[in-house]
Amino acid sequence: MTTWLDLPEDTLFGIDNLPYGVFSTADDPQRRRLGVAIGPWVLDAGAAARAVGSPDPLLEAASLDPLLAAGRAAWTRVRDALTRWLSEPAFRAVVEPCLVPRADVALHLPFTVGDYVDFYASEHHATNLGRLFRPDSEPLTPNWKHLPIGYHGRSGTVVVSGTPIVRPNGQRKAPTEAVPSFGPSRRLDIEAEVGFVVGAGSELGTAVPMADFAEHVFGVCLVNDWSARDIQGWEYVPLGPFLGKSFATSVSPWVVPLDALAPAARVAPPARDVEPLPYLDDRDAKEPWGLDLALEVRLNGTVISRPPFAGMYWTPAQMLAHMTVNGASVRPGDLYASGTVSGPDRGTEGALIELTWNGERPTELGDGTSRGFLEDGDEVTITATAPGPNGRRLGFGEVTGRVLPARS
Amino acid sequence: MTTWLDLPEDTLFGIDNLPYGVFSTADDPQRRRLGVAIGPWVLDAGAAARAVGSPDPLLEAASLDPLLAAGRAAWTRVRDALTRWLSEPAFRAVVEPCLVPRADVALHLPFTVGDYVDFYASEHHATNLGRLFRPDSEPLTPNWKHLPIGYHGRSGTVVVSGTPIVRPNGQRKAPTEAVPSFGPSRRLDIEAEVGFVVGAGSELGTAVPMADFAEHVFGVCLVNDWSARDIQGWEYVPLGPFLGKSFATSVSPWVVPLDALAPAARVAPPARDVEPLPYLDDRDAKEPWGLDLALEVRLNGTVISRPPFAGMYWTPAQMLAHMTVNGASVRPGDLYASGTVSGPDRGTEGALIELTWNGERPTELGDGTSRGFLEDGDEVTITATAPGPNGRRLGFGEVTGRVLPARS
Repeated sequence: MTTWLDLPEDTLFGIDNLPYGVFSTADDPQRRRLGVAIGPWVLDAGAAARAVGSPDPLLEAASLDPLLAAGRAAWTRVRDALTRWLSEPAFRAVVEPCLVPRADVALHLPFTVGDYVDFYASEHHATNLGRLFRPDSEPLTPNWKHLPIGYHGRSGTVVVSGTPIVRPNGQRKAPTEAVPSFGPSRRLDIEAEVGFVVGAGSELGTAVPMADFAEHVFGVCLVNDWSARDIQGWEYVPLGPFLGKSFATSVSPWVVPLDALAPAARVAPPARDVEPLPYLDDRDAKEPWGLDLALEVRLNGTVISRPPFAGMYWTPAQMLAHMTVNGASVRPGDLYASGTVSGPDRGTEGALIELTWNGERPTELGDGTSRGFLEDGDEVTITATAPGPNGRRLGFGEVTGRVLPARS
Repeated sequence: MTTWLDLPEDTLFGIDNLPYGVFSTADDPQRRRLGVAIGPWVLDAGAAARAVGSPDPLLEAASLDPLLAAGRAAWTRVRDALTRWLSEPAFRAVVEPCLVPRADVALHLPFTVGDYVDFYASEHHATNLGRLFRPDSEPLTPNWKHLPIGYHGRSGTVVVSGTPIVRPNGQRKAPTEAVPSFGPSRRLDIEAEVGFVVGAGSELGTAVPMADFAEHVFGVCLVNDWSARDIQGWEYVPLGPFLGKSFATSVSPWVVPLDALAPAARVAPPARDVEPLPYLDDRDAKEPWGLDLALEVRLNGTVISRPPFAGMYWTPAQMLAHMTVNGASVRPGDLYASGTVSGPDRGTEGALIELTWNGERPTELGDGTSRGFLEDGDEVTITATAPGPNGRRLGFGEVTGRVLPARS
């Protein structure tokens, strides 16, 4: 597949990617439009459809919501059309005027978030956190290899990349303290994650099997699940993380369609050393949904970590099957994230608490300072790429956010 | 306050209550309308406003969403108007035709649920559950009296009273078993709770103090947080309940406005035996938000429990203050529930696991059978009343649901 656009060979937003987002321009900031990223441009998708004489209500919406709800057949049709318009020279004259420089647009939360679920699918992350939070127990809980552990997060505080993050206040109590104190979190952290955006919904009372993953999941984005470790550590027993997470979760503005990730980005997940129950058993699946995403975490411009998604123990297809096996329904706009992506090696941890081992070995930044946890003013940016066709790479854009001081 | 309607003295839906709901009638089942319950009728609120010559867009909506978002001043104005139309005889001729017999309407989920949070605010419930789930530890975790413990539930599976509940499948593992098995939950339970419906939203990054509770919370409903104890017991460490809860949460169709509960239903909460941090300290508050609701739980028609809400350790104002103290925003339609309401005495437990002590002392039903946990076909109905003006009582209607067999 080639495009009539003159793009650099190594662009991460080539014709094989075409991630979806919602943008506005300075001349009409209230008008949100659906677009796909290509090279340094955004294609105004609704305008392009009109220009080629095939206006499409799904592309005229101010968010991805109608397209998400339309289901797999519509996703294929729309992607095929956009690909054609950007690759067949006959369309160039009418489509080219629908390109807007990416540098000139504001990007918005691309869909209305339904339920937000966060999993815990990296064995390395779960092991590290277990050691840090429960030093006197086995790091992995007995259930960990039997099911993808997850919990519901706060969907109302999912924000688009670039939204400032106000340092949360809350109750903090170190093990050595007798009673909790109140104040700004002193251990503000990140979690570099990959998010899965549900399109087509399911019926209440009915499970979604792993094989139906691609019928329900529309695409993939990047997630930074900001975490206040001191608040989390004090509150999370017995009902799980709450205020330590709910102040903000940032997502990247571009949603990479699942179609862009097949087949080059698919990899076999790790060997299952505990036999999975049948609804989670992907050992004989022709196409398990391991994904070879390479993440990169930058703190104030310095790369501090390169977490590999390919090693995640649980795949997003297993997560969806588990999340619905009790009959829970999914809706268009539901977002579920992988949990922190951490690899086995130093420099592949997706959270500061692991990377700096609870602040004991601060990570060095390019400006000569170092960090155990985040300071006010710090800016964290997570990016990712995946293999695409013909040895090219696909980009996911970035999710970024800067820490503002706590409010009193 | 009296009404020109001829209502029985002991009606639970008197002129002082006027709970809001969304209804349709058989002649036009697709048309959802906003109504208030009064005696055995529903007043079609939009039609009444038109009939008196004051059409109101907030009352023409197909859900409570616009009214919720409109805020406290609008809530007061609308309630005052409805009360006037139903009490001043001059309005009778035009308003009476807007009454529909309650027996003739279908009731719907009255608002779009934003985030759903479930608290854990009964000391008796938390103590009982601690004993049952963690027999080797102190029943109350060290944080319990320092903060209202809560977690996010699944908002997409909040259903209106009457929706059948499909028994969930899932992973179950008794402590005596080596590995989990998969199948229908064998310990399906209820949780009798009180829910708080957020109206006016708050800004991300800004806490909502206890004193602003009534500016943000619109009203109160009943909640049955169905729970699969075997699934929950296996999955919930370390990130909290997930599939043991997410298959369904039922809510009553009527939302009792906060205004109906002041002042007769307000009571002092229990003594705080641990000094609360200032943002949770209601010991000197003129009007702490303890609420004197009397719940009743029926299983297949037999009253099995009468949980008292007045003894809840944490008030809904404290819950809101805690939920937002980290800067998390609330939105119109957010729902937060109290957690199971359990009193200190036998017969006041809000969940079967407590009432039957994990099935060891089954509860007797009127038909000669007994239950440890729920069987297929069982119907559970939760009702509640609260003191109203002049010694009358206000009703909350009911939340009911019948258990259907698991799907394979």
